[in-house]
Amino acid sequence: MERTGANIVVIGGGTGSFTLLQGLKRYTRNITALVNMADDGGSTGQLRDELGVLPPGDVRQCLVALSATPKVRDLFNYRFDSGSLKGHAFGNLFLTALEKMTGNFAEAVELASTVLQITGRVEPITLTNVKLCAEGIDGKPIIGEYTIGHSEIATRPHVWLEPEADANPAAVKAIMDADMVVIAPGNLYGSLAPALVIKGIQNALKRTKATCVYVSNLVTKPGPTDGFAVSDFASEIERLAGSKFLDYVVFNSDAPSPELMERYAHDGEYAVTYAADVLKKQHYKYRAAPILAKSSWDGAQSSDPLASSRSLIRHDSDAVARQLMRIYFA
Amino acid sequence: MERTGANIVVIGGGTGSFTLLQGLKRYTRNITALVNMADDGGSTGQLRDELGVLPPGDVRQCLVALSATPKVRDLFNYRFDSGSLKGHAFGNLFLTALEKMTGNFAEAVELASTVLQITGRVEPITLTNVKLCAEGIDGKPIIGEYTIGHSEIATRPHVWLEPEADANPAAVKAIMDADMVVIAPGNLYGSLAPALVIKGIQNALKRTKATCVYVSNLVTKPGPTDGFAVSDFASEIERLAGSKFLDYVVFNSDAPSPELMERYAHDGEYAVTYAADVLKKQHYKYRAAPILAKSSWDGAQSSDPLASSRSLIRHDSDAVARQLMRIYFA
Repeated sequence: MERTGANIVVIGGGTGSFTLLQGLKRYTRNITALVNMADDGGSTGQLRDELGVLPPGDVRQCLVALSATPKVRDLFNYRFDSGSLKGHAFGNLFLTALEKMTGNFAEAVELASTVLQITGRVEPITLTNVKLCAEGIDGKPIIGEYTIGHSEIATRPHVWLEPEADANPAAVKAIMDADMVVIAPGNLYGSLAPALVIKGIQNALKRTKATCVYVSNLVTKPGPTDGFAVSDFASEIERLAGSKFLDYVVFNSDAPSPELMERYAHDGEYAVTYAADVLKKQHYKYRAAPILAKSSWDGAQSSDPLASSRSLIRHDSDAVARQLMRIYFA
Repeated sequence: MERTGANIVVIGGGTGSFTLLQGLKRYTRNITALVNMADDGGSTGQLRDELGVLPPGDVRQCLVALSATPKVRDLFNYRFDSGSLKGHAFGNLFLTALEKMTGNFAEAVELASTVLQITGRVEPITLTNVKLCAEGIDGKPIIGEYTIGHSEIATRPHVWLEPEADANPAAVKAIMDADMVVIAPGNLYGSLAPALVIKGIQNALKRTKATCVYVSNLVTKPGPTDGFAVSDFASEIERLAGSKFLDYVVFNSDAPSPELMERYAHDGEYAVTYAADVLKKQHYKYRAAPILAKSSWDGAQSSDPLASSRSLIRHDSDAVARQLMRIYFA
């Protein structure tokens, strides 16, 4: 294969992967997004239920992040707003129709990649049609990613897939061949665990010579990650993956605006803290940097009184990508 | 504009246009398909009802006929077979999502054209959101293309659009600039009339210096075209268009297989006849030729006993295109 810059793999799905991929594609064309296959809510869940397909939603987001065609990109994210198609993102229908037509989700993703003119590749982490399962606070299993997100699950829960998933060989190969593997920020048990608990992926993360980096979440959610510091997220990721595979942890050192913090606190969400003394004792290196999107801290200074209430605490995709490239070139 | 072969316009929609376009694209890259906008049945009708969009179905068929990418072409014609998406052709959803997103059907068709890598162009005959209306045998109006197709309409009926349609300026320009304008075979009152009754299109057909050709239907339908000969179809087309604009009529001189004729007769459908003495008296020239698809006449000789029952009386797209090119070069 032609050498086209740093060979970087991003593991995740959803908004965290979207942000990382958008930033990284400026600095390398050699990106592979590995996407968890456990989503079963909303448009994606309905398509899985009705048509028995693999979940298209997170794959769609990664494809869009890597796309070079603004119009097709917008089309893929377009959601129908009425009638029997209401709530479906067009890109989900695209992937679903292709999977039904070809009988092959990987082929569907490949054709969508061509139409969207993407940089790099998007690979499902598994092609097994799975349900995510997690241990509830009562010790009983909770089944389904959507349900898990709306239930009380145990602290540091047991998480598994049913049926047991085979790692997509293309995903394993991508991890083994990579220069750098990045665990994207994202819902720890809903988005990251369904990738990390797959045996073939665990083995690849343990064996790869790639530099493995976790980009830490920005906020805690009420429930199992309540009060989590950066090091807690990192240790949970390693527990789920079954090995101490991380070489680096990158986290945000900037404070979001007080207005935004207050609004998040109202939903039981708090900025992830970090303690240098704890981090120094870990086996991985860490890098603190101001990687917050501008809208996360300047809402209060905006002349638009609604700016603060509309904005979200988000990563700045370019700032994160620059930190990752600094590690790559270190 | 770069000269890229004979500048040919095809007016119609549905199977007849599909066949002509598939054949013609071998001999010129300079094709414009003008598509009637009256379809309101099936997937198309449901999308119009639920989302208020213009009818995507016939446009989709023309795009697919002109497409150079087999996989995306198959995808556009893929129909969902279960769940709430059941019956929808994927290409219809594509055009609908784009129209909703951009607020502009013409732009939707343009982007679809790029994705499908089509030869030539596809233009809606009008961008007015219309209903087809026709005079019933009781003289009362019947409203809607689907309903008209399932009702008893008058012989040589009055046909109109509600509201009155503005011709798409791009369609008028295409007719005026063309070397040849072809009226595709198709349902006379359901597919051709909704294009021919538009004032701007009527004026263009009357004024254009292009050679105007009608490729005759192969079979009559029970009802208003029952017993129609080639010259009857031609005269109805001119009556609907309001002028004697035809320069040529092309029709099939081959007999379909007796088995196939019998099966069609069972549905009240008969091969269109022609009478040389009548045709000789017309203002247009005519060209009789064997332009039937092979499956229309060799079903009985096939070793597969089902071949005859599966096959349809259809035009051979290449044979029709060759006849049209002979007229062009005459």
